[in-house]
Amino acid sequence: MTENTYDVIVLGGGAGGVPTAVRAAQLGARVAVVENNLLGGLCMNRACVPFGHMMVASNILGNLSLGKDMGLVFSGITKDYKALLERQDELIAFMRQGVESTLKKNKIEIIEGKGRLSGKGRLVVNGKTMSYRNIILATGAKWLTPDFPGADLKEVINSDELLKSHKLPKKALLFGKNPWLIEIAQFLHRFGSQVTLATTDKSILANENKPIRSRLIKALKEQGINILTKAKVSAIKKKKDGLHCVLKVKDNDETIVVDRVISLRRRASVAGLGLDTVGLDEKRDFIKVNERMETGVTGIYAIGDLAADETRHYSHLSSAGGIVAAENAMGKESFFDHRTIARVVFTQPQVACVGLTSKKAKEAGYDVATGAAPLSMNPFGMIISENEGIVEVVAEKKYGEVLGINFIGQGACEMAGQAVLAIQMEATLEELAKAIFPHPTLSESLAEAARECLGRPIYLP
Amino acid sequence: MTENTYDVIVLGGGAGGVPTAVRAAQLGARVAVVENNLLGGLCMNRACVPFGHMMVASNILGNLSLGKDMGLVFSGITKDYKALLERQDELIAFMRQGVESTLKKNKIEIIEGKGRLSGKGRLVVNGKTMSYRNIILATGAKWLTPDFPGADLKEVINSDELLKSHKLPKKALLFGKNPWLIEIAQFLHRFGSQVTLATTDKSILANENKPIRSRLIKALKEQGINILTKAKVSAIKKKKDGLHCVLKVKDNDETIVVDRVISLRRRASVAGLGLDTVGLDEKRDFIKVNERMETGVTGIYAIGDLAADETRHYSHLSSAGGIVAAENAMGKESFFDHRTIARVVFTQPQVACVGLTSKKAKEAGYDVATGAAPLSMNPFGMIISENEGIVEVVAEKKYGEVLGINFIGQGACEMAGQAVLAIQMEATLEELAKAIFPHPTLSESLAEAARECLGRPIYLP
Repeated sequence: MTENTYDVIVLGGGAGGVPTAVRAAQLGARVAVVENNLLGGLCMNRACVPFGHMMVASNILGNLSLGKDMGLVFSGITKDYKALLERQDELIAFMRQGVESTLKKNKIEIIEGKGRLSGKGRLVVNGKTMSYRNIILATGAKWLTPDFPGADLKEVINSDELLKSHKLPKKALLFGKNPWLIEIAQFLHRFGSQVTLATTDKSILANENKPIRSRLIKALKEQGINILTKAKVSAIKKKKDGLHCVLKVKDNDETIVVDRVISLRRRASVAGLGLDTVGLDEKRDFIKVNERMETGVTGIYAIGDLAADETRHYSHLSSAGGIVAAENAMGKESFFDHRTIARVVFTQPQVACVGLTSKKAKEAGYDVATGAAPLSMNPFGMIISENEGIVEVVAEKKYGEVLGINFIGQGACEMAGQAVLAIQMEATLEELAKAIFPHPTLSESLAEAARECLGRPIYLP
Repeated sequence: MTENTYDVIVLGGGAGGVPTAVRAAQLGARVAVVENNLLGGLCMNRACVPFGHMMVASNILGNLSLGKDMGLVFSGITKDYKALLERQDELIAFMRQGVESTLKKNKIEIIEGKGRLSGKGRLVVNGKTMSYRNIILATGAKWLTPDFPGADLKEVINSDELLKSHKLPKKALLFGKNPWLIEIAQFLHRFGSQVTLATTDKSILANENKPIRSRLIKALKEQGINILTKAKVSAIKKKKDGLHCVLKVKDNDETIVVDRVISLRRRASVAGLGLDTVGLDEKRDFIKVNERMETGVTGIYAIGDLAADETRHYSHLSSAGGIVAAENAMGKESFFDHRTIARVVFTQPQVACVGLTSKKAKEAGYDVATGAAPLSMNPFGMIISENEGIVEVVAEKKYGEVLGINFIGQGACEMAGQAVLAIQMEATLEELAKAIFPHPTLSESLAEAARECLGRPIYLP
């Protein structure tokens, strides 16, 4: 192999690209990762990690009211946002260093620069041509300007700009469908901002089962977050006292004055990749792949946000897809399991939905049964006043195959792991009903939801 | 059927008896529950629920140091133990009422009194004889006086007595092997007591894998809890300034002055049940049952603490066993899955161990492989400074069958649900390695531990 020839080039060193490169190297490939920005990508530098960090701080504040009920009263709270950001930045720097070490340990070359396909088997980076047997495209997505009037004002920002600013808005409008907005809304609210969360949809998380979204809305409203649904931004005018946002809500006009509008709209970074030079369509919203992550052009794979519409932009989808792509590139037979992608929101309460919603299951032709167990009936749920929590199971009636599991409540995103395994392992309702979850935990409600679905709950009234 | 004849009598209305009775009723049985104390049993009234409640309060306090690192500083904290107890008592009363409603809804008779077997098919309660086709014994366990000198002093208490007292000890020695002692130790410490936790074993949780117990010890010591292992109480003397406890630690004498010694020692409530009248041995430490929960005498089943040695006194074992017993009593074929009982400790960090430890797996003849992923390398673990956390997988080498999974860290007892399902569904390492856990969660480390076990971790250095 010549100096510039690789078994696998991974274009993009983010949440998808890094595990992809490691897996390919494990399988004996000579691998290079090409990254034009920061290793770790959006996820580590500007999304999952900083948002996760914010949500942890937010949860500590959120737990104070439970503490108060338990006789723990805290006085004189200082919320030092600058200290939070400092810890966050240190953490991210440390993690990024970790990523670099991991790549180096696996003898993966890290090439800084923007890569562009130049015909099959060739990638041009910094003016130099690299050759490959396989390339795995993992360039993620990029921000789009929101599609409402006034979106070009500098006070209309995305999360990158929020993270860069060292001062939180006093009043903010968060507008759009991206679930990160819900996390940001709660964080800002807990740190003292006055927050309105608005969407054109009939609900936030409009595609999830009703018990999940309605319980989330109830919880957020009770916490003090203003939520507007079926809302459109008809104008944003900059005045002395701030941005006057005119929203059409259902059929009424409502004006909200804020100092920041936060809106997130993303699309796969398809443009500029040179897709046309290899016979792929550069005009699509994202690159279409099969369950082997193949683009249709031999030796060219695509993963993560680059290969998904905005509703499927999850890091765990990127990393899992990347591993599948790497394994196929290296001659193995590997398939991506779309059934088990968790749709997570790290708010308080957390939300995690895995597999098919009732609606999607019906659309797929299943005879659907659903069962649910509210966490307000769960012993540990009662202890922590988990009043809005619920576990829902969506199953096929005849054989009881579990198709979907939805959680809202504390730790839902960890409990999602149970749903992932149940669906991956093709568990039936009878198997879930029998599962011996430890007591007292919220997980017990998963077995109870399965039993409820079977018509024989033990504890539910 | 005559007035006093039942398809199923459940003797004991605790964590085991209640689901047992409900399941039998669901299957069409005429059921009575006989309880001589409080419905809900030890678990709800004096253990899982109050301890769970305490651990939640304790965790809120424990999270303050993370909060501080994140810029959240409180100038003052009031810890009102009386308010905590009041909330706890209200909660328990509410739950107990729930149990009563559940039983009544299922048309189960609740009979107050102490039951004693009087030959096959007969139970005497309050002087009256009841008849049954099946009886499920679920009387739990009772306290024993600890077996060290001075154990009869009134300042040497068990957890019932601690819960009854409205004042916490200033200095306490917690002595024994029961994992509840670890929870109580942390709670007392967080609420201001000076605490020593001591055991005759070489370690706390001596039977668990070393990485788990050594990490727990490290965390507790760093929090400020004094831990003594290979320690024996050689004398306790009551003096003016408190109880002088002389401990032989390894080969040295150490004296600790405290105001309370807490020790927990329990044994199945076998005596007084009239077991001899049906041909069962009243002298055993607990009633032996098979995987159908049968005692060997037709129509007589035993479940929960009554049918287990002290190391297996878990509510989830009771309730699961009870459902198995009820199903078998009603003519179904039901088997108890011993493999998936989680051994849980609700401290901070939490501990949950499911299935076989490496040692037990070797003893059982398996060719054992283990893999581990420290949470200090997990992105969410880094966010929450989960420095002592780890996920361990114990597997059989050839086919990769997962035999055991151990967690230490935040939410371990919920994550245990993943282990329960993985072992129940007979997942292999390859299947765990592929599981798409949401990002960023601690659960991701379960897949990484499986990959490590397979010799191909993605992220570990």
